[in-house]
Amino acid sequence: MKIDGKLYRSIWIDESKPEVVKIIDQALLPFSFEIKELCSVEDVYNAVAGMSVRGAPAIGAAGAFGMYLATLEITPHTNIRKHLINAATYLSSCRPTAINLSWAVNKVLNKINLLESREKIISTALFTAKEICENEINNCISIGKYGVEILKEINSRKNGRPVNILTHCNAGWLACVDYGTVTAPVFFARDEKIPVHVWVDETRPRNQGARLTCFELEHENISHTLITDNTGGYLMQKGMVDIVITGSDRITARGDCANKTGTYLKALAAKDNNIPFYVAAPSSSFDLNITDALNEIPIEKRDAEEVTTIEGKYENQIVRVKICSDKTVAVNYAFDITPASLITGLITEKGIIQAGENDILKLFKNNN
Amino acid sequence: MKIDGKLYRSIWIDESKPEVVKIIDQALLPFSFEIKELCSVEDVYNAVAGMSVRGAPAIGAAGAFGMYLATLEITPHTNIRKHLINAATYLSSCRPTAINLSWAVNKVLNKINLLESREKIISTALFTAKEICENEINNCISIGKYGVEILKEINSRKNGRPVNILTHCNAGWLACVDYGTVTAPVFFARDEKIPVHVWVDETRPRNQGARLTCFELEHENISHTLITDNTGGYLMQKGMVDIVITGSDRITARGDCANKTGTYLKALAAKDNNIPFYVAAPSSSFDLNITDALNEIPIEKRDAEEVTTIEGKYENQIVRVKICSDKTVAVNYAFDITPASLITGLITEKGIIQAGENDILKLFKNNN
Repeated sequence: MKIDGKLYRSIWIDESKPEVVKIIDQALLPFSFEIKELCSVEDVYNAVAGMSVRGAPAIGAAGAFGMYLATLEITPHTNIRKHLINAATYLSSCRPTAINLSWAVNKVLNKINLLESREKIISTALFTAKEICENEINNCISIGKYGVEILKEINSRKNGRPVNILTHCNAGWLACVDYGTVTAPVFFARDEKIPVHVWVDETRPRNQGARLTCFELEHENISHTLITDNTGGYLMQKGMVDIVITGSDRITARGDCANKTGTYLKALAAKDNNIPFYVAAPSSSFDLNITDALNEIPIEKRDAEEVTTIEGKYENQIVRVKICSDKTVAVNYAFDITPASLITGLITEKGIIQAGENDILKLFKNNN
Repeated sequence: MKIDGKLYRSIWIDESKPEVVKIIDQALLPFSFEIKELCSVEDVYNAVAGMSVRGAPAIGAAGAFGMYLATLEITPHTNIRKHLINAATYLSSCRPTAINLSWAVNKVLNKINLLESREKIISTALFTAKEICENEINNCISIGKYGVEILKEINSRKNGRPVNILTHCNAGWLACVDYGTVTAPVFFARDEKIPVHVWVDETRPRNQGARLTCFELEHENISHTLITDNTGGYLMQKGMVDIVITGSDRITARGDCANKTGTYLKALAAKDNNIPFYVAAPSSSFDLNITDALNEIPIEKRDAEEVTTIEGKYENQIVRVKICSDKTVAVNYAFDITPASLITGLITEKGIIQAGENDILKLFKNNN
């Protein structure tokens, strides 16, 4: 999508320099726009750990490209199997909650694991990583096509008045290589002249809503308003929200969704106010091996400093300010679980389904 | 309560200098501890508007002392009735949501409105304002005595393991002249050797939890952990919260409670996880004239800059950092409504009651 009128993806390979992976450094947005080159497996690990690449589908793509960079490190003396498995284990361990990372890393590993020639391994890894990117983009486009129908229906029910969408965190194009899962329906609505307005939760502690979702919407000329994470409930009570759409980092066989901490609270408020709550996510975010979301999905516990400090712009520098006493101890669980019972539907690239075992298993049986 | 081992109230009159009102400047905590002198009605207005004094009972006390300062401005040429009514209207208009402000201002006004002599007016205003302070403190002590019984019961049910209390915003001693509504039960539990631990919501946008509640608990040696406003739902899902206690800025005849934005979301999560949700508030926070909370309680809309920026400490200065693009528009509703159906009980100075018309009307009939 566009930044200052120019089209970008959030992660890509430049054909003129195929030995590096390029990313938009999301950790610096919106204060500074910088393209970063990742030259090694370690660079990819650090970019994902440091949130320069983030968002479930995008870290999947990063993991796949990380495997490609691992293949470039193969020398005549390398124990190839060991090297590739080590790289896959290392990359997959970087962030635990989103299933997409290990899913994409393993997809590349499985494609190259039985190959012998270095050249074939490299070209297959690159091909697979690129294919994963294209698939994620196509998934977003399909999610957008299904999702926009829901927005159209609401708009028509409101006699043409703007559709107020609330979203939490960032499941926009930066998080998904391009288009975004939550934002694709919004962009398509804009293209079809359906008036939309987005309430953007700031999404503490890292403020991905304030920093990334607002940035994306600003550059795509979508009407939006930033709110604190506390405000959505009141807006719903006052009839100012028509639909909530969020992404997900991992969806279980039963339709429970792990997503950025605070998503669960918005789903409760949506339910209490009879507002539809949708999760937009590609099939790469499903983990059919998990049934007990609360006990089986690993919830990332991040640095407490993300809570006790906040990053922002001060006198044209990016600085971290301390928001509490130096003695204050904090804890930082990055995700929570939204139970299927609170979810109106899952918007996938294969269609909109109920968040429940029947529909989910059917989806994977029919289309995979 | 204590700061660095020394006892304070958050607002008081020094007998050695009775022509000014002293406050702890809450807008600077925890980064800087400063006592401010309020010398005029305008000083009081600005201190309340700028959140140097905040918290429903404390702004009631400030309003009452503001009326006292208004009486000091009476000269032989003053139209006394007009002057006092103007001061009362001005002070009451400062912040709309908490009922305590206009309640306390009117209480002083009613006591002095029919008096003739300047001296009598001044002494009665001062006496009434001080009485309001003492009453609020006694209310907190009574709330503490009732509330600690709930904590004891939970502690005994947990076989002596610590009681995990979640609170939102600050309804501590700074907000209530002394003791606090939410914190009094916690302090009393500590005194009775009941182990307690408090999860403190940071409470965006102004971070009263991170800045004030953590500060109070730190100086009273109560175990506590700072969390983002998004995190409470996950903690409840995982069984890490035993009880939620918040304050309230206005309670209707039906038991619906206006409180800091985001309170409603925690009440929903508590209900969903079968965790008791209590509101601790004195009778000065009740507004029996209101039945339809969502449509009748004026919800304060504050400056959007409180959302687009955050204040914190950077290199030993207090600075405001911008957390989004300069073009981002934000909205800032400061309160929401927690419906009575989500509230386990109201802890008042007259006892613990159901959040419903029957109990509330009975409370006011029997004891007033």
